Amino acid sequence: MQGVDPAWLPDGAFRPIGTRRTLIRGTGPLVDTVRGEVTEACARFGGAVVQDDPDLVLELTGEDDGGEAFTCGRRDGCTTVTATGARGLLYGFFHVVRLGEAAFLGETEPQHHRPELALRMLDHWDNVAVHPVMGQVERGYAGGSLFWADGRARGDLERVRAYGRLLAACGINAVAVNNVNVHAAEARLLTDRIGEVADIAGALRPYGIRTHLSVTFAAPVVLGGLETADPLATEVREWWAGAAARVYAAIPDFGGFVVKADSEGQPGPFAYGRSHADGANMLAAALAPHGGTVHWRAFVYDHRQDWRDRSTDRARAAYDHFVPLDGEFADNAVLQVKHGPMDFQVREPVSPLIGAMPGTRLAVELQATQEYTGQQRHVCWLGPMWSEVLRCEIAEGSPVGALARGGLVAVSNVGDDLFWTGHPLAQANLYTFGRLAWEPGADPHRILDEWIRLSFGAGPGSGPAAGLRSILDGSWRTYEKYTAPLGVGFMVQPGHHYGPSVDGYEYSPWGTYHFADRDGVGVDRSVASGTGYAGQYAKPWAELYESPETCPDELLLFFHHVSYDHMLKSGKTVIQHIYDTHFEGVAEVEAAREVWGSLVGLVDPARHARVAERFEEQLRSAREWRDQVNSYFFRKSGVPDERGRRIY
Amino acid sequence: MQGVDPAWLPDGAFRPIGTRRTLIRGTGPLVDTVRGEVTEACARFGGAVVQDDPDLVLELTGEDDGGEAFTCGRRDGCTTVTATGARGLLYGFFHVVRLGEAAFLGETEPQHHRPELALRMLDHWDNVAVHPVMGQVERGYAGGSLFWADGRARGDLERVRAYGRLLAACGINAVAVNNVNVHAAEARLLTDRIGEVADIAGALRPYGIRTHLSVTFAAPVVLGGLETADPLATEVREWWAGAAARVYAAIPDFGGFVVKADSEGQPGPFAYGRSHADGANMLAAALAPHGGTVHWRAFVYDHRQDWRDRSTDRARAAYDHFVPLDGEFADNAVLQVKHGPMDFQVREPVSPLIGAMPGTRLAVELQATQEYTGQQRHVCWLGPMWSEVLRCEIAEGSPVGALARGGLVAVSNVGDDLFWTGHPLAQANLYTFGRLAWEPGADPHRILDEWIRLSFGAGPGSGPAAGLRSILDGSWRTYEKYTAPLGVGFMVQPGHHYGPSVDGYEYSPWGTYHFADRDGVGVDRSVASGTGYAGQYAKPWAELYESPETCPDELLLFFHHVSYDHMLKSGKTVIQHIYDTHFEGVAEVEAAREVWGSLVGLVDPARHARVAERFEEQLRSAREWRDQVNSYFFRKSGVPDERGRRIY
Repeated sequence: MQGVDPAWLPDGAFRPIGTRRTLIRGTGPLVDTVRGEVTEACARFGGAVVQDDPDLVLELTGEDDGGEAFTCGRRDGCTTVTATGARGLLYGFFHVVRLGEAAFLGETEPQHHRPELALRMLDHWDNVAVHPVMGQVERGYAGGSLFWADGRARGDLERVRAYGRLLAACGINAVAVNNVNVHAAEARLLTDRIGEVADIAGALRPYGIRTHLSVTFAAPVVLGGLETADPLATEVREWWAGAAARVYAAIPDFGGFVVKADSEGQPGPFAYGRSHADGANMLAAALAPHGGTVHWRAFVYDHRQDWRDRSTDRARAAYDHFVPLDGEFADNAVLQVKHGPMDFQVREPVSPLIGAMPGTRLAVELQATQEYTGQQRHVCWLGPMWSEVLRCEIAEGSPVGALARGGLVAVSNVGDDLFWTGHPLAQANLYTFGRLAWEPGADPHRILDEWIRLSFGAGPGSGPAAGLRSILDGSWRTYEKYTAPLGVGFMVQPGHHYGPSVDGYEYSPWGTYHFADRDGVGVDRSVASGTGYAGQYAKPWAELYESPETCPDELLLFFHHVSYDHMLKSGKTVIQHIYDTHFEGVAEVEAAREVWGSLVGLVDPARHARVAERFEEQLRSAREWRDQVNSYFFRKSGVPDERGRRIY
Repeated sequence: MQGVDPAWLPDGAFRPIGTRRTLIRGTGPLVDTVRGEVTEACARFGGAVVQDDPDLVLELTGEDDGGEAFTCGRRDGCTTVTATGARGLLYGFFHVVRLGEAAFLGETEPQHHRPELALRMLDHWDNVAVHPVMGQVERGYAGGSLFWADGRARGDLERVRAYGRLLAACGINAVAVNNVNVHAAEARLLTDRIGEVADIAGALRPYGIRTHLSVTFAAPVVLGGLETADPLATEVREWWAGAAARVYAAIPDFGGFVVKADSEGQPGPFAYGRSHADGANMLAAALAPHGGTVHWRAFVYDHRQDWRDRSTDRARAAYDHFVPLDGEFADNAVLQVKHGPMDFQVREPVSPLIGAMPGTRLAVELQATQEYTGQQRHVCWLGPMWSEVLRCEIAEGSPVGALARGGLVAVSNVGDDLFWTGHPLAQANLYTFGRLAWEPGADPHRILDEWIRLSFGAGPGSGPAAGLRSILDGSWRTYEKYTAPLGVGFMVQPGHHYGPSVDGYEYSPWGTYHFADRDGVGVDRSVASGTGYAGQYAKPWAELYESPETCPDELLLFFHHVSYDHMLKSGKTVIQHIYDTHFEGVAEVEAAREVWGSLVGLVDPARHARVAERFEEQLRSAREWRDQVNSYFFRKSGVPDERGRRIY
């Protein structure tokens, strides 16, 4: 593919394998994929696929059991990967790719590798047609859709296949190919246009990736001509059963449905007086005979709220809606929960719902597309944030990564951009997501180093690696510094969500307020005097968040309304913290831009140019954030900056 | 036309003529129009067009001299209208229509009537194609375009002809048929699509209305294939001369060009290092051989301003750009100036430019379409505002209405809506504009009564007239009360400009700020300490506006930044004034809605239903304005309402 960036699979990554003798045992499509990979690498680098005297053995042992685990070890000068499932063999192959030359050094006891989460999924918010407001990819910052062009599935699916290969190399095994907001054209993917989905599934299948489809709850009405979509109505259940059967006839390994119901205008079971368990279970029943799963999103809240009403709290909504339904969902129904209670802000607490539904299979949803984190014009590596979430023991002794029995999902940040993700460094988010989904407790910094080494071909300490690490490592906290402070969130331009507007959502119906006045700022979500949201947590979180004295600084304004002279644990007042972090954040962007400039000649020129261009915009935007936020709070508080810096 | 509202020309308005014997003398197309009107009225009501013994004589005396004046009197039981021009006869005819039965009572000395302004024009911001952001009619709130549909001029021009008739009946004699922001398709109206403009001109001509066209300054490049649009380049001048000649070949009575240049992204002479006089005069030269006029808009300012920079003042821009060019414009170049220095806010001072260019023909531009005054969902009769502007003696002894030697122009509020203007009561703005353009010193309240009598068929004191007058008469001040206070302007939602967003433009590049902080609000435009804008005025205005002590309350925040406890001449503090007016404004809307409710049965049911529906939205929106503005200033100032009313 002319000009498409190789991301973390540059040709050079295959040199260690491609220069060696590899023995491959086993049959089936995925083994063929592995064989094809090795053969191509050898053709390029002079190695060979052999029957004897191998440097590397890749072996599917026995019948393919469908498993994803593999074992890798090295003795007597031969590296051996074995797996009981073909998917496992594929992951083992990419494990060797990731190890590079290290895979062929010394001796290593066989080590067993298996993904901790069975489902590692990307949700594409791609529309088939270009939406008049949202464009083709809703919240997409990397061009048009990889899957859809000119109103239908792409005819040339080479790029989709290449995408599947990248995903497999970081461990992702499922993709939902269309937007959870299902518009008219996209609704028909479920029925008469399922052939297009099958074509895409065919391109992803060789890399072990199952295809899922977002469907509209109103499908029986809008597609089936029924008068109701009531999930308890017999004709509705029959319609869905028939629809699911036809989908599986076209795509035998189809993954299942993704549903956004009763949310931001999408139809759902509430219209029929039914619960979300009724809705999800009806779809689960349709999918069950075929082994499919329904992913039912928990993003349900009142988006027509009155800003005057301070008792309603959007943060409470998912918990209030769904916890009463715990235990009622079918085994193949997964409740898909955003990691925070609001909407992918740069800083949120972990959703208390995740710890409160032991009888339900939950999937946790992250957002790789940087809707609120710089829209892939800003460097913002989300690994540390996601890792904090996944390691957070939100229920006693159980981290989020273990509670996500239904899998880990990210909203994709990929489009038909030549760099895949618009900002080349945003590829790190996609890669990190895949690796964390495989191992939620992994050290994200190790993943970052791995990504840098694969993508930029340099080990730690050499070439551009140190520079890249310094740019990416703290970039999330840098972004946090120059945007909305102390967990209060939003303050973005309404609609497109790019750039600052401190009061942009303050008098809106969206439930996203900061309540700043001349004396203070923040949302009182305590039980004692606020919305009671803090009480949705189990111990110790409920107590921790309840009081401004114990609440962590970085979430203080999410949980409490405090005065500008409130003293943080850091020893700074809230207002001085706002000023300081905003000046620091911009300084950090300036420094990162400098570092990037110094890497010219050490990285691919096209990548360098694209990132350099984005740094200019990031810096402009960061300064705008700094000046608007500081001016806003200075005008409101009247408190001068201790250090006398320029505030407008 | 099925279902189209008759506006101020219901059939009944023609009864007084249609029941009588009318003698018509003269020949020519406009006389034929008059004859057709009378004949149709007689066919309906039993009168006759006669050769002798008339009750009414309508006479074109001699050759048509093109004049618009007429004389009307009554003696010996016969009403006589004479005119030396056919247009005058047409206006005389509608004068009799407006008089109704009163035209046929008693004896009246002949009275001479002539328009004070020769050009009385509507600018339609209509696009041929539907623009993806702006829709078809930019800032249009009455449906699609009257002129253009399905990407070309309407085939059926009956509605356009009816529109021309309404305009003639209130004295309007010119229409620009496309948006001043000239997009690609619309640019071609000047050249290969001029035939479509000619069709529209043909439908408007029978009512004495000339057609004008908005053109792009870049036409020689984008249409002519030249490499430059430099107004001093010979090939450019020749291209425009040829283009103008071809326009006049298609439309012999074509009015001229309207140009928005170097403004909000439109191309202009600055790109070639030329002045706006160079640009305008080049087009004037192309039009001069044919008797046409170029209307060159003075709406030139920096729309990429830095909000941090308090020295740049958008209000200054038109004066700073154009006053140095006074005397340089050709005779057939008209500089078209918005009535205020900003952009059609509910309250602005008169533009100082209007009093400062004695050597230039100026046209004054008003905005009938209610972009910033409720978008035809709110009742807001602009007659009193326009009248204040026109009677303001901005240069010593000369009111704006006399300084507007180039004419009075309004941005049209009409579309293909069945009520013409979306909100039926917004018809009053169109009518009032026409009548004020004819007689800028007229009492707007008399015009309102005339409009009510014609449109609702009731004299003062009877039927719905008193109610209508009470709803409309103070509606502009009501709107002012519940929106941005004391002349500070804006505070609207960015982009579409509907509904409140106090900080919506505060940190934007558009030059529209209020600078509210915890201590005060307003823009210091004094010479002593501010941007110096106040110094652009002649005496006595410069002194009046310079000091907060003498500046009129209603413009205080336009000219000065004052503290919330600043005492107004009204005896209230600024902050209490904000609270009081916002509560009052909503109460006045509630009262108006009540009055409208009481008129059910007294007005046409379709009109009643439409207005009733709009009142619901107006009230909702007014409450939103009240609560957001009051909350914003309460949160900032900390000053409680003296009367303890609810502020959020």
